[in-house]
Amino acid sequence: MFTVEEYHDRMNRTKKKMHENGIDVLIIVNPSNMYYLSGYDAWSFYVHQMLIVMIDEDEPIWIGREMDANSAKLSTWMQNDHIISYPDDYVQSVEKHPMAFAANILKEIGQANRVIGLEMETYYFSAQAYKVLVNELPSATFKDANQLVNWVRIVKSPQEIAYMKRAARLAELAVKTAYDSIDEGIRECDVVANIYHSQISGTPEFGGDYPAIVPMLPAGKKTSAPHFTWTDAHYSYGDPVIIEIAGCYKRYHSPLARTMVIGESTEQMNDTAEVVLEGLNHTLTSIKPGMTCEEVEGVWRDYITRRGYYKPSRLGYSVGLSYPPDWGEHTISIRKGDKTIIEPNMTFHLIPGIWFDDYGVEISETIRITETGCETLANFPRELYVKQSSPNLFINGSALPKEEI
Amino acid sequence: MFTVEEYHDRMNRTKKKMHENGIDVLIIVNPSNMYYLSGYDAWSFYVHQMLIVMIDEDEPIWIGREMDANSAKLSTWMQNDHIISYPDDYVQSVEKHPMAFAANILKEIGQANRVIGLEMETYYFSAQAYKVLVNELPSATFKDANQLVNWVRIVKSPQEIAYMKRAARLAELAVKTAYDSIDEGIRECDVVANIYHSQISGTPEFGGDYPAIVPMLPAGKKTSAPHFTWTDAHYSYGDPVIIEIAGCYKRYHSPLARTMVIGESTEQMNDTAEVVLEGLNHTLTSIKPGMTCEEVEGVWRDYITRRGYYKPSRLGYSVGLSYPPDWGEHTISIRKGDKTIIEPNMTFHLIPGIWFDDYGVEISETIRITETGCETLANFPRELYVKQSSPNLFINGSALPKEEI
Repeated sequence: MFTVEEYHDRMNRTKKKMHENGIDVLIIVNPSNMYYLSGYDAWSFYVHQMLIVMIDEDEPIWIGREMDANSAKLSTWMQNDHIISYPDDYVQSVEKHPMAFAANILKEIGQANRVIGLEMETYYFSAQAYKVLVNELPSATFKDANQLVNWVRIVKSPQEIAYMKRAARLAELAVKTAYDSIDEGIRECDVVANIYHSQISGTPEFGGDYPAIVPMLPAGKKTSAPHFTWTDAHYSYGDPVIIEIAGCYKRYHSPLARTMVIGESTEQMNDTAEVVLEGLNHTLTSIKPGMTCEEVEGVWRDYITRRGYYKPSRLGYSVGLSYPPDWGEHTISIRKGDKTIIEPNMTFHLIPGIWFDDYGVEISETIRITETGCETLANFPRELYVKQSSPNLFINGSALPKEEI
Repeated sequence: MFTVEEYHDRMNRTKKKMHENGIDVLIIVNPSNMYYLSGYDAWSFYVHQMLIVMIDEDEPIWIGREMDANSAKLSTWMQNDHIISYPDDYVQSVEKHPMAFAANILKEIGQANRVIGLEMETYYFSAQAYKVLVNELPSATFKDANQLVNWVRIVKSPQEIAYMKRAARLAELAVKTAYDSIDEGIRECDVVANIYHSQISGTPEFGGDYPAIVPMLPAGKKTSAPHFTWTDAHYSYGDPVIIEIAGCYKRYHSPLARTMVIGESTEQMNDTAEVVLEGLNHTLTSIKPGMTCEEVEGVWRDYITRRGYYKPSRLGYSVGLSYPPDWGEHTISIRKGDKTIIEPNMTFHLIPGIWFDDYGVEISETIRITETGCETLANFPRELYVKQSSPNLFINGSALPKEEI
């Protein structure tokens, strides 16, 4: 999918950072980092698996479950002798831990006395995995290498940008589908079914992969809480609906959020949406490479403060390659205190959501930093969408167009 | 969704186990366990969040991110003063850790000197979270309480069984959709789009929730690797396709796997499928409450050994309530060495998959243990499905029925 040259380049940049941090051996558990360096792609991260990068070896070693070794052989660029698997009785066992197996491999290949970097704050590196590893390798020195590879991923290659632009096409389709489907009397689950269909079926040229987060679609009072998903309840007249979804192409994401109202908006809602929109537009035109992330956030913050608003949460974060449960890359946050300087081909999800106790508004864009400013990856009307309601009466939960009744 | 009485019962059974294990305070990070005890349900487990159960308090405390506090207020049965949130600058920060915030709360409410149980092997309890907690609470005694609540969940209540049966309806619909959609010349992504639509749109009576695992749909040689998802490639004549999916209703799962072949099967494939099917049927009729899990696996193993087959991986596992990335409950594995005695209203996914280097077969059932044996939750033909191919020619990736060309 990516050329072997691109994988070598990624490996070299990883080893450079390992060298800078005094790390000889890096144990990578984050599935996004595993994919980035090896191409490994299967839904197997619910069992322990890892990539071992040694500073003096060209190819990483994959270690995982026996039944997943064929996935590694078929999806990675490495030689088959770099694929090592543990027997199935290590899976979810209280007696045997896959990290003990991995520690033995490290001993066998003479890596047990070296400085080993660990991704301490990665979802699938459990507290127990850490304990077992430290116990089994008493001669090793451990260092926190959290986000080491995530930072290697921060500037995107042309092919990565191309994938994210395809993902943005999928995101546009999915939000358009949501706009078309959501209406008074329609069930939330039927809308989400349509959204999924758009996200995955995609275009005649390419289909979609599963996004790292499912559609988040809170309605009514639930728009006060951005991470609700959906139910099988019916929409009512006047309901606000937040639609936060992403397109995903070969694990690369382009998130997009919009807010709509069925039938009629409130003055409050209109005012919040106007501030979010104008604040976002103002920020988009102000972004330049060379600014720090906190400067970008300052532009937004100053604007909404003048309008009497306050947003305690971060304005955005680095986005791109990801696996569940998060499409954020866990490196840059666009907020006060983040002094990272933004560069061309960094990519961010700017999500200026504002939530109150009884409603919320989100209107977001995924952007790429250019040589002179930024571009949005999606091309989708930026507005609070007020949908003229065409209420559907329904019998036994099945919506029927009014005319037919 | 569940009655407050059911939540109290769950809390009491949890506290009983805490007492048996000498644990005063339990920190619950597993989202399924959080949902089981509190009702909390939002896609927010990508940031640190937890439930604190104290052995001498009626209600647990929810701790999570500021913007998720409204989700907790709206979805749990607890009083609002049991919802505590940390500011947004704790999110994915290298300076502030949410577990330090949680440790402070434990100090404030006088729990810092007690015996604290931790879910050491849970996805979202990172190595770093563990380190911070141990550092910040030097007077506490820590105990591994891994799977403590998972074991409380092992026997399902009538309402849980009812939810799993609804999930089984959704699984039937989804596999039927896969059978109908998969054909020569069709893109994998278009099939998955249809599967998702069925899983989520569901029936006129109820819709579906997101399953903890996305559709796994390896085709051709990739059937040798069970955890591949899908691509936008087109199916070819003769392709085997494994379909492993679940229906999910209010976070309760009923997985179902089937294998099909487009056009024509091979002798090898037919033989493997026959052994898998007959072995599964034989096991289903042999299961009785009172058997141990390894006895159940022995029935299967003896049968396939007589047929000259060998399956190194476990035959099944406990299933029910779950969040990504796994629908298994991480308690019982149906394999050698697991001496758990099976009881009525335990629920398992029996997945007798057999994989070779160039193909594989999976035909599975989700079962409930009854007073006298077991019942399958889904009602779906158990067979290797050979589909008469009606090849679709396609132009620019869009499939068109032959007649139209």
